[in-house]
Amino acid sequence: MSPRTGRRPGDQKTGQAVLAAARRRFAEHGFAGTTIRMIATDAGVDPALVLHYYGNKAELFAAAVDMPVSPTQVIAMLVDVGPADLGEVVARTVVGFWEHPDVLAAWLALLRSAASEEAAATMLREFLEETILRPLAGVLGGKDADQRVALCASQIVGLGIARYVIRLDPLATMSTDQLVAALGPTLQRYLTGDLD
Amino acid sequence: MSPRTGRRPGDQKTGQAVLAAARRRFAEHGFAGTTIRMIATDAGVDPALVLHYYGNKAELFAAAVDMPVSPTQVIAMLVDVGPADLGEVVARTVVGFWEHPDVLAAWLALLRSAASEEAAATMLREFLEETILRPLAGVLGGKDADQRVALCASQIVGLGIARYVIRLDPLATMSTDQLVAALGPTLQRYLTGDLD
Repeated sequence: MSPRTGRRPGDQKTGQAVLAAARRRFAEHGFAGTTIRMIATDAGVDPALVLHYYGNKAELFAAAVDMPVSPTQVIAMLVDVGPADLGEVVARTVVGFWEHPDVLAAWLALLRSAASEEAAATMLREFLEETILRPLAGVLGGKDADQRVALCASQIVGLGIARYVIRLDPLATMSTDQLVAALGPTLQRYLTGDLD
Repeated sequence: MSPRTGRRPGDQKTGQAVLAAARRRFAEHGFAGTTIRMIATDAGVDPALVLHYYGNKAELFAAAVDMPVSPTQVIAMLVDVGPADLGEVVARTVVGFWEHPDVLAAWLALLRSAASEEAAATMLREFLEETILRPLAGVLGGKDADQRVALCASQIVGLGIARYVIRLDPLATMSTDQLVAALGPTLQRYLTGDLD
C-alpha cells in the first residue's frame, strides 16, 4: 500500500479551519476525549461535512498530524491476510511506510512529541489503541490479542527509534529486505505463537 | 544484578566538579569525542584520580547521567552466560533494571533527551555502541554480531517506550515474568537464531 497523495476535496479554507480545530482539540483533550462534533463546532461547520471530508476521527487525526497514511486502509488490508502470513505482511508494510519520507517524518514527529510531552504520549496511545491495535486485535481474535498486538507495536516503535532516532549501527543501514527478514518472525510469534 | 548503591569514594566537592565537567563535555562533544583527560583538566584534577574514582569513561558517563547501573558489570556478567540462555538472561536483566525506579528514570531521561535533541541521540548511540553493544557482540562472536545485538537493543528500547512512555495497554500492566517470557525468545533468536 502506498501513502495517499493529493489534496482533500472541498473548500480549502474550510479544510484548513477543520484541521486547525482538530489539532487544538486533540492536543487539549487527547484522541479519546475529542469528538467530531467539537471540532466541527470550533471550525463553524456541520459535523456531517467533517465526516464527509474525513470519514472518521482516525482519518481526521491522521490528516491533522500530517500522517500521509490512512489507518483505516491499513486495517482493511490486514483483514484479508491469513494469520500465518500476518507477521511478515505487517513487517513489510511498516518498513515500506518508512521508505516514504513524509510518512516517516510524520511518525517520528509523533514519537518525539510523545517522548517529551505527557499529553502527546496520551494522544498517541489513544490513537494507536483505538485505530490500529484494537482493530488488529479484533482481526486476530483470542483473549490475549491485545497483548499480542501491543508487543508487535513495541518492536515496531523500537526499531523505528533505534534506526532513525538513535541511529544504531548497523540498523540504520540495513536494507528493507533484511529488516523484514529480522522483524517478520518476531511479529509472527507475538501475533500467533507461544508467549508463555 | 542489583543497581549499585551508596556514594562514590573520595572528596565530595572534587567528585561533583568531575561530574559537572563530565556532563558539560559529554553534552558538547558526545561520548566518543570526550576524553577522561578533558574532563580532568576542566575539573582541575589529575586524570589518574578520575580513573581511580570511576574506572573508565563508560562508568563516568553512567555516573554523570545518574545511571545507577554499571555497564561494565553488566557485560562482565553476560560473559559468563552460555549462548543458549543469553536471550532470557538479557531479558530478565533489563526488565529487572526497570523495576528500580532510579534506573528506569535515568534510562527514560536518556531516551527522552535522545528523542528531542540530535546531540543527545548521538551521545546515547555512542555510549550504547561502545559500552554495551560492541562488548556484547564480542561475547557473541560471528560476522553479523553487531546486527544481532542492535536488533536486541531495538526491541528493548521499544518495549521500554511502549510500556513507560506511550503506556500501551496491556504492556504497562504486564508482570516481569510475562515480559521476560514474551521478550526472551525474541532476543534469543536475534542473538543466535536464523535472521535471513
